[in-house]
Amino acid sequence: MNTFGQYLRLTTFGESHGPAMGGVLDGMPSRVFVDRDLMQRDLDRRSPGKGGTVSPRKEPDIPEILSGLSSDGYTLGTPVGFIIRNRDVRSGDYKDIENRFRPNHADYTYYAKYGVHDFRGGGRSSARETVSWVTAGAIVRQWLDGMGIEVSARFVETADIRQASCTGDSVGGAVECVVTGLPVGIGEPVFDKLHSRLAAAMMSINAAKAFEYGDGMESSKQFGSQCRDIPYVDEDGKVRFRSNHSGGIQGGISNGMPVNFKVYFKPTPTIPIEVESIDKDGNSVVIKPGGRHDVCVAVRAVPVVEAMTLLTIGDLILANSRFDSHSA
Amino acid sequence: MNTFGQYLRLTTFGESHGPAMGGVLDGMPSRVFVDRDLMQRDLDRRSPGKGGTVSPRKEPDIPEILSGLSSDGYTLGTPVGFIIRNRDVRSGDYKDIENRFRPNHADYTYYAKYGVHDFRGGGRSSARETVSWVTAGAIVRQWLDGMGIEVSARFVETADIRQASCTGDSVGGAVECVVTGLPVGIGEPVFDKLHSRLAAAMMSINAAKAFEYGDGMESSKQFGSQCRDIPYVDEDGKVRFRSNHSGGIQGGISNGMPVNFKVYFKPTPTIPIEVESIDKDGNSVVIKPGGRHDVCVAVRAVPVVEAMTLLTIGDLILANSRFDSHSA
Amino acid sequence: MNTFGQYLRLTTFGESHGPAMGGVLDGMPSRVFVDRDLMQRDLDRRSPGKGGTVSPRKEPDIPEILSGLSSDGYTLGTPVGFIIRNRDVRSGDYKDIENRFRPNHADYTYYAKYGVHDFRGGGRSSARETVSWVTAGAIVRQWLDGMGIEVSARFVETADIRQASCTGDSVGGAVECVVTGLPVGIGEPVFDKLHSRLAAAMMSINAAKAFEYGDGMESSKQFGSQCRDIPYVDEDGKVRFRSNHSGGIQGGISNGMPVNFKVYFKPTPTIPIEVESIDKDGNSVVIKPGGRHDVCVAVRAVPVVEAMTLLTIGDLILANSRFDSHSA
Amino acid sequence: MNTFGQYLRLTTFGESHGPAMGGVLDGMPSRVFVDRDLMQRDLDRRSPGKGGTVSPRKEPDIPEILSGLSSDGYTLGTPVGFIIRNRDVRSGDYKDIENRFRPNHADYTYYAKYGVHDFRGGGRSSARETVSWVTAGAIVRQWLDGMGIEVSARFVETADIRQASCTGDSVGGAVECVVTGLPVGIGEPVFDKLHSRLAAAMMSINAAKAFEYGDGMESSKQFGSQCRDIPYVDEDGKVRFRSNHSGGIQGGISNGMPVNFKVYFKPTPTIPIEVESIDKDGNSVVIKPGGRHDVCVAVRAVPVVEAMTLLTIGDLILANSRFDSHSA
Repeated sequence: MNTFGQYLRLTTFGESHGPAMGGVLDGMPSRVFVDRDLMQRDLDRRSPGKGGTVSPRKEPDIPEILSGLSSDGYTLGTPVGFIIRNRDVRSGDYKDIENRFRPNHADYTYYAKYGVHDFRGGGRSSARETVSWVTAGAIVRQWLDGMGIEVSARFVETADIRQASCTGDSVGGAVECVVTGLPVGIGEPVFDKLHSRLAAAMMSINAAKAFEYGDGMESSKQFGSQCRDIPYVDEDGKVRFRSNHSGGIQGGISNGMPVNFKVYFKPTPTIPIEVESIDKDGNSVVIKPGGRHDVCVAVRAVPVVEAMTLLTIGDLILANSRFDSHSA
Repeated sequence: MNTFGQYLRLTTFGESHGPAMGGVLDGMPSRVFVDRDLMQRDLDRRSPGKGGTVSPRKEPDIPEILSGLSSDGYTLGTPVGFIIRNRDVRSGDYKDIENRFRPNHADYTYYAKYGVHDFRGGGRSSARETVSWVTAGAIVRQWLDGMGIEVSARFVETADIRQASCTGDSVGGAVECVVTGLPVGIGEPVFDKLHSRLAAAMMSINAAKAFEYGDGMESSKQFGSQCRDIPYVDEDGKVRFRSNHSGGIQGGISNGMPVNFKVYFKPTPTIPIEVESIDKDGNSVVIKPGGRHDVCVAVRAVPVVEAMTLLTIGDLILANSRFDSHSA
Repeated sequence: MNTFGQYLRLTTFGESHGPAMGGVLDGMPSRVFVDRDLMQRDLDRRSPGKGGTVSPRKEPDIPEILSGLSSDGYTLGTPVGFIIRNRDVRSGDYKDIENRFRPNHADYTYYAKYGVHDFRGGGRSSARETVSWVTAGAIVRQWLDGMGIEVSARFVETADIRQASCTGDSVGGAVECVVTGLPVGIGEPVFDKLHSRLAAAMMSINAAKAFEYGDGMESSKQFGSQCRDIPYVDEDGKVRFRSNHSGGIQGGISNGMPVNFKVYFKPTPTIPIEVESIDKDGNSVVIKPGGRHDVCVAVRAVPVVEAMTLLTIGDLILANSRFDSHSA
Repeated sequence: MNTFGQYLRLTTFGESHGPAMGGVLDGMPSRVFVDRDLMQRDLDRRSPGKGGTVSPRKEPDIPEILSGLSSDGYTLGTPVGFIIRNRDVRSGDYKDIENRFRPNHADYTYYAKYGVHDFRGGGRSSARETVSWVTAGAIVRQWLDGMGIEVSARFVETADIRQASCTGDSVGGAVECVVTGLPVGIGEPVFDKLHSRLAAAMMSINAAKAFEYGDGMESSKQFGSQCRDIPYVDEDGKVRFRSNHSGGIQGGISNGMPVNFKVYFKPTPTIPIEVESIDKDGNSVVIKPGGRHDVCVAVRAVPVVEAMTLLTIGDLILANSRFDSHSA
C-alpha cells in the first residue's frame, strides 16, 4: 500500500496529472524546528528543468504544510500533512499514447492490475510521486541533523550523457550515498536489517535496478581472510574499525562507521524514438512517446535517494528507542 | 521485529544454541495439501554437512508441525506453528570467543544494541535462523505450485572454493533465482514494488551484500533505446514481450514474463585464521574463531533464497487478491 | 498512530485550529462511483449548527478530493487524498483557557505526553477530527452499498437535553447502529473479531465510554439455555436464525443476521459553568470554558458511528477477500 | 490475523485438539527476570478443574519456553517462543456434534468462512487459545511490575451460579479490572486511545459482550457539570484528581489515576441441554452438546482479562517510548 515505515510513517497520495500530490508524515517527535528554506533546497534539487540532463517541465514545487507544525515552525508530535499542487499539466503531450502501452513503463502492468487506463503521465507510478518523499525527507533531515546524523548522496556518471542528449536517447546512472554520525545499534537483527530496509527503500525509487552496500557485489569474489574489519578502541574510548568492508553495518545493525551504499538506475524508456508496442485491445502499434523526459533520471534521483535514506533511518531510530528507554 | 510479510506472515523465534528454532506462518489459505517429504527435501538442501563446501555440523532438521494442518495433511486456514529442535550444540567451540567480538560478525553490534552478550553461535543473527524460513517456504511452495508458479535458484560460483578450502579460508558467491508462472499484476505500484520486496527479502539473508534484477547493474551503462522490451500478443491472445531486460517487472508489478534476480554474498568472516579484535571491555585480543563454518555460505543460501522468494510472492499474491474479489 | 485499518486504511491529519483537516483513504477497490452529493449529505449530518442541541459553529465542510478519483467520479484503486479547510477559527474564544487545563479534557494528558501546549481547540483530540472520518466513511458507504450492505445509526435520548440546554450544561446519550446485508464470514476468529474491531472503532470516537453488541451487558445476567439462537434453513436455502441474541456475530464472525450494537457517550465537559482547575505551572485556577459546545455530543456522533462502522467493515471485507480468491 | 499488538506483539497458534498451543512474544525489552513460579500461578488461575463453576477438564498447563530467555532466566530482547502441549484430548466427547453446528458457537460461521469443518473443540475459537495469552501476559507482568504497574481483575457475580449448576445450565458474569501505577501519557490521541485498545483486547476474549470504562454506560445519563474530575497538585508536586469519573483516561491518554474498566460476558452456549440446530447439509437436527463446559466462563476469564490488559499496556508503553528518548 502507500505507506512507508513502521514507527515513522509516510503515507502518500496523488496522480501526476491530478490536482495535487501529498503525504502524511506520522511519528515525528515533537519540538523539532523545520526550516522551510532548507526544505525548499531539497525540493529544488529534485526539480526538473535545472539543466540539460533533466526534463524541462517547470513546476514551482512549494509544499503547503497543513498540520503538525506550530505557528513558529516546530513539530507538534502530530502528523504532518502536506500537499504540492500539480500546476503544469499538458495532457496533450500524452495524446499519442492514449490507450497504448509504452514499453518498459508501468502502463500495461497497471492496466492489468487495476482494470483502469486513465493514468496519463503514469498515475501513481510517475516519478512525480517522489516530490512527496523529498518533502517528508527534508523534515526528517532537520530532526536527524540535530542528532549529528548526515545523509549525503552524489551522482556517479556511468554512461555518456552528452551523446544520448543529442540523439533524444536516455542513459542510466548510479548514485552513491553515505550516512555519517549514525549511532551504533540502528537496525534490527532479522527481517529489518538496516541494509534490508535501505534496499527496499532504494528499490522503491523509479528506475532503480540494483543495490549494494559496503564491498557489495565485489564481496562475492573475495576471500574471508581479506575483508575483515578489525575493531579497536580509539583515544576517546570509542570502538572503531580499521577498514569498512562492512559498509558500516554488521549483522544488520549499524556499527558506528559511515554507512555507504550504491543504487543503479536504468535509462528512462520514455524517449521520443519510435518503438513498436500494442494498444489496449492487443493491436500492434508504433508509438513515439512524447511528453517531457529526463536524459538521465539518476541525476534527479540524488535527493530522492537521500530522502528515502532519511525516512528509513528515522524509522529505525524510533524502532530502536524502546531500548533507550528501558535499559534504565 | 521478527515478522516477515503483511498478509502471509512468518514470525520466527529461536537462538541457535537454545532449545529450538521455530515459527508461525499465518495467512495460508485453507485446503492446500502439504507433502512432508517435499518439505524435507528443501530442508535437506539447506542442511550443512552435505559436502566439502559447507559446515560439517550435522543436524537432523525435521520440523514438528504443531497446528494449522488437518490430520490428513491439509491446511486449515489457521496459523501453522512449527518448531525445529537444536540438537548438536557444542558450546565448547565458542569458548575461545567468549566475551570477544568476532570481526565482521554481529557480536559487537548486538552487544551494543541489547546490552547482552549471551549469544553463543550468534543468537538471532545466526544462519541457523534460516531453518525456519525454509520450513515456511516449503509450505508456501506447495500452495504456489498449485497455481503453476515455480521458484528455482542456483549457485553461481564467483571465487575459487577449492583454494579457500585448503587454507581454511572462505569465499563469497552469488545465487541466481527465476520465478516462472507468475501471473500479471503481482506487486504494488509505490512502496511495495515486487522488486523492492524481493530486495528486502534477499538482503535479510545472512551475508547478502547486493541485489539486482533484470539487467540490474548493467542497466546503468545502457541507452534507453537499447533496452526496451517490445510487447506483442501471442497466438493464445496472451501479452508477451520480445525481450526481458525488465526481469519480468515493470513499474513494480509483474508483467507475465519470468522474474529473475541475483543476490551476491560475502565470504563468512568466521574462519579459523587468527585475527585481531577487542573484548567486551575494550582490550585488544587475538582470536582464532573456532566452531564449524562453511567454506562458501552462498551454496547453502540457495534454498534460503527460494524460501524468501516464495514467502514474498505468497504475500503479494494475497495483497493482490482484493482486486480479484471486487472486480465483479 | 494516526492510521485506522489494515487493508482499507484511513490515515488522518490536522489540528482543529490549523489550516486544514484531511486524510488518505488507501485500499479502496477501483471502479466505484463516488457521488459527491451523497458524501455531502453525511458531512452535513455531522456538521454543527443544525439545531439547538449542537454547537453553533458554522463551517462549510466541503472536502476537496485531491487524488484517487477519475475525472468522471470513479475510484482508480489509488489512495484517495482529501482535505477540509478550517475556516471559522475564533481563537479568542480560547483565551480564557490558555495555559490552563480544562477538566476531563485531553489538555493535561496531551501536555504531559507531548511537552507542548499549543493545542487551542484540542489539537488532534478535537471532535473536528471526525470530519475526515465522515468523509472517508461516505466513500466506503458507496462501495458497500453496491454490495447491498447498509449501515444505519440513530440517536437514543438518555438524558434531559431540554433542561441542560437552559442551564448551559451538557448531557450524555447513546447511539444504536445496525448493519444489514453483511455476508456470512466477515471478521477474524481470534484478535480481529468483528465485534472487537467495532469496539475499538467506536471507542475511538470522542466521549465514548461504553460499547455493547447483541444482548450486550444484559447477557451477563442470563442463563445459557435462554439465549441460544436456533439456526434453520429458509425457503431460499439460506441459513437464518430464529433470534438474534448474538447481534449477528458468532465467534467473532458475521453469521448473516443484522449486526447491531450500541455506543454510550458522556456529556462534553466543556461547558460555560465555572470549575476549579490548575494551570501549566500547577497553580490553582478557576476557569469558565468558553468556545462553542454541543449540548449533547451524542447527536452529532450518529454519522461518526456510521463512518467508523463503514471503515471497519470495509477493512474486514478486504481481509476476507483472500478466502474468496483462493477457494477456487 | 493472529497477532496482537504493534510494538509488543503476541502471535499465537494452535487448535484446541491439535498437538499444542503456542505463541511468540516479540518486543520484550532485554534483562527482565522471568520467574517461572509466578508465571505458573497465572496459568493455574486460568486452568479449569479448580472448582464447581468451571470445566472439569484437567490439563497440566506448563509452558515450554523455547527462546528469548537466558539460561538464568532473563529476557534477551529476542522473541520469546513458547508452547503448551494439549494432553487431555477426548475427541469422543465431540462425536455427537460432528458435522452439526452448535447454536451461538463459531461452528457455522467458521465453516462458512474457511470451508472446513474439522474443528473439534472449536479450533482457533476455543477458549483454550487463552492459555497462550496468559503465558505471554505473565511475562509482561514481571516487566511492568518492575515499573510499579499493577493489573488486577476480579469476578463480579451477576447471575445465580448455584442454580445453573444444578440444572446443567450456564450463567453470564462480569469482570472488573484496575490498573495502578500507570504513568501519565500512555495511549495515543486518535485511533489508539488507551480505552479503544483496551476495548479491542477485552472483546477478543471469548464470550465478551460489552465493555465500559470509568463511569461507562452511566455517563450517558449524566450532566456535564456533575462529572468533572477536578485536578490539583498534591504535596509531592504531582498532579492528581479529586474524582475519577474518567476512569484514569482523558482524551485517550492515561492521566495518572487508576485505570478501571469492566467487561461483561454471556453464558457459554455449550450446555448439555437439548437444542434444535442444523447440520452441514442444512438438515434439521437436535443436539445435546457434550464435552466439558464451564458453568460460568467469566470466572476463568479473570486472568485472561489481566493478561490482555498487560499486553495492551506493554504495547502502548513501548509506543510511547519514542517520546522519552527524543525529548532530550
